[in-house]
Amino acid sequence: MDTKVLLGEKQIPTHWYNVIPDLPGSLAPVLHPVTLKPVTPQDLAPLFPQPLVEQEVSTERWVPIPEPVREIYRLWRPTPLFRARRLEQALGTPARIYYKYEGVSPAGSHKPNSAVPQAYYNKLAGIRRLATETGAGQWGSSLALACRLFGLECTVYMVKVSFEQKPYRKSMMQLWGANVFASPSRETNAGRAALAADPASPGSLGLAISEAVEDAAAHDDTHYALGSVLNHVILHQTVVGLEAKEQLRATGDYPDVVIASHGGGSNFAGLTFPFLADRAAGKRVRLVACEPASCPTLTKGVYAFDYGDTAKMAPVVKMYTLGHDFMPPGIHAGGLRYHGASPLVSQLLAAGQIEARAFMQTPCFEAAVTFARTEGIVPAPESSHAIRGALEEAQRAKEEGRERVILFGLSGHGQLDMTAYDAYLSGRLEDFAYPEENIRASLARLPKVDF
Amino acid sequence: MDTKVLLGEKQIPTHWYNVIPDLPGSLAPVLHPVTLKPVTPQDLAPLFPQPLVEQEVSTERWVPIPEPVREIYRLWRPTPLFRARRLEQALGTPARIYYKYEGVSPAGSHKPNSAVPQAYYNKLAGIRRLATETGAGQWGSSLALACRLFGLECTVYMVKVSFEQKPYRKSMMQLWGANVFASPSRETNAGRAALAADPASPGSLGLAISEAVEDAAAHDDTHYALGSVLNHVILHQTVVGLEAKEQLRATGDYPDVVIASHGGGSNFAGLTFPFLADRAAGKRVRLVACEPASCPTLTKGVYAFDYGDTAKMAPVVKMYTLGHDFMPPGIHAGGLRYHGASPLVSQLLAAGQIEARAFMQTPCFEAAVTFARTEGIVPAPESSHAIRGALEEAQRAKEEGRERVILFGLSGHGQLDMTAYDAYLSGRLEDFAYPEENIRASLARLPKVDF
Repeated sequence: MDTKVLLGEKQIPTHWYNVIPDLPGSLAPVLHPVTLKPVTPQDLAPLFPQPLVEQEVSTERWVPIPEPVREIYRLWRPTPLFRARRLEQALGTPARIYYKYEGVSPAGSHKPNSAVPQAYYNKLAGIRRLATETGAGQWGSSLALACRLFGLECTVYMVKVSFEQKPYRKSMMQLWGANVFASPSRETNAGRAALAADPASPGSLGLAISEAVEDAAAHDDTHYALGSVLNHVILHQTVVGLEAKEQLRATGDYPDVVIASHGGGSNFAGLTFPFLADRAAGKRVRLVACEPASCPTLTKGVYAFDYGDTAKMAPVVKMYTLGHDFMPPGIHAGGLRYHGASPLVSQLLAAGQIEARAFMQTPCFEAAVTFARTEGIVPAPESSHAIRGALEEAQRAKEEGRERVILFGLSGHGQLDMTAYDAYLSGRLEDFAYPEENIRASLARLPKVDF
Repeated sequence: MDTKVLLGEKQIPTHWYNVIPDLPGSLAPVLHPVTLKPVTPQDLAPLFPQPLVEQEVSTERWVPIPEPVREIYRLWRPTPLFRARRLEQALGTPARIYYKYEGVSPAGSHKPNSAVPQAYYNKLAGIRRLATETGAGQWGSSLALACRLFGLECTVYMVKVSFEQKPYRKSMMQLWGANVFASPSRETNAGRAALAADPASPGSLGLAISEAVEDAAAHDDTHYALGSVLNHVILHQTVVGLEAKEQLRATGDYPDVVIASHGGGSNFAGLTFPFLADRAAGKRVRLVACEPASCPTLTKGVYAFDYGDTAKMAPVVKMYTLGHDFMPPGIHAGGLRYHGASPLVSQLLAAGQIEARAFMQTPCFEAAVTFARTEGIVPAPESSHAIRGALEEAQRAKEEGRERVILFGLSGHGQLDMTAYDAYLSGRLEDFAYPEENIRASLARLPKVDF
């Protein structure tokens, strides 16, 4: 067999897969952050264009991908599926390991899969500018690229600590023409309030979301864009899993387990949900979400209604959460430092249809180094959680002496995260314990909701 | 037509193309740096394994690629050929522009194409360790990767100014297991002498070569590896042009002009030489080398015998040169800061079979930004020279109102070079004049040779 399975551009999916009709039970309502009553489409209109609001609640299993979006996808899609033969040999495992690699996009991760359709629908709606937040910069750079390709302006509120420590991703956004502010900024009430409380605030993703939402709500020509969590983002990311299924078919293998890193859920859901659809046809595939032990939303959070952001301006959704003001330790996988989780992922986890595991960052980097030294590619710190998960499955297959087909998602490359590898290689990487106390405190501040 | 042309792994070339039998005139001899007499294969044995010494002078037009090398190539080859439709539209040119993208390799550039066979042949020869030099780090990281994949140790002498200013590429080398020293180092006589003369020396590529050659010559189990200039390196890089020809065939187009950036010559030759072979069949394709105006080897150098390194330890070859102690200004395209050029490229340029152009760095970055904002990919500063060349050809086609097929090489991505883009976008990028005085001075110190 070849080392990688490539598809032609004609095989870029023509439809996204919508998991909503296949959910166990009905979708929980989305609540207004002030009234705590179900939101109406009108409530969302200041933030999102009509097609995205519709996708948020659509019960159509297959949603057509607009041709102009597929046209941009062609710049890097279909992405390759690799058979990790060198890794298998190094591990001495009887497992066959495959990985779907999204780092070939111009931004270096899976994030453009949703940034492109979001920019497209907003352009169609006559919107002039998009506002968003970004942590480590993967989402912000992807939206900057997508806006540039569709002729939209782009404003990014970047968590200040990343703005200062990850200047390269900030520069990429600027190269693609975005306007980037360190958050908390002086541009919004939420930002100014945070600065008044603490002029040296390092910022947080929750706060940056508040700034972007406020910016969008305050300007008629501006909408908001979110890089994960929401149903329409999950929907767009299913191109990843749909391609991976097609590619695996060419190998004759079907996965026993599909593994992906989990932050807000769009990477995990994008790869795994299309496999979930196979269960109706009797396939028994396990789906495993891998998260950081220091931000253990799925493994230590509660399944409850909570705000999407710190300032309580974003909608309230039912999800696994550590509390909207939970502040995770400063791990290198910045893209996984979110207090909540996709409501769709959460509902499936609560129903026992998927699994979740949490890993400390040292074993994740150890796995990433093993991967880089056998397969070549330098993984993003976020992706290293999936690699860790895959290595443990491969190890179990070895102990049991059984064949096993493992598919994992390599969501991005880590060439801009080399300081994290430096810390690991020089023994300076810190492992944070489960922040039990903080979790308990923030969970005490969940909104009181009548559902 | 699709946006990109992909080939399957079976279409990875089985042979490299050797231009030597197609050269106009015979190959100039390589001279010993001390005696200035032609070297013998024995002279090269302390530095290179037998197969590479043979490739250096082989007159076989097609050299088989060993299967273990093709096996590693499969990790990222064949690389994609793109039709730059969005760029064409932005330029309003009737030209059809194609680019061959080598940034998909794990190291992010074309350099692994030669690093892999060099590591392979040395492994076969029972060598335990390779020593090399690197400027910006593209070559060093590629050799580190290749050594890791074949189980060799790797020592890299990295020009000190890059070691300090480009820590990410240093970290990549270390991630792949290489031992990296800032050059000048205390590890070699050449390094210690340089430090004695100037403890604050920023280093240079020529000096780092001296250190690596001395290290290899001093240790029986260690060989030397060079990332450009030499005939065997040029040979390995022809996989790029061979694939591009196959891919263009699928489009029905044949290039009027093929354009590539030129530093030591391996990137330029790798893409263009396979097209040169078509001239015998009557094809009229122009081949254009693009170099920095601040290190104008091909456009302002002389065609003469000169040392490959500053300390006069590397062989003396006949090439276009600015003098072995020429010190180019600190442009961001660190991979193009070499005083000499491949003897093969030089011989073809002297015979009028190829063209050369020099560009200041500001217009190169301007071209790179135009490219990134239309095609998405962030180009390496080195590659920006080829983009500039391609844009000027496209502009001429527009002025003349004529169709034209342009192929250029996008040798690598620039995600680790964002500080250079920052400088450009903020107007802080410096353009250096042709360093006429320095060139004249260093050319006065060429070796006196009887050929």
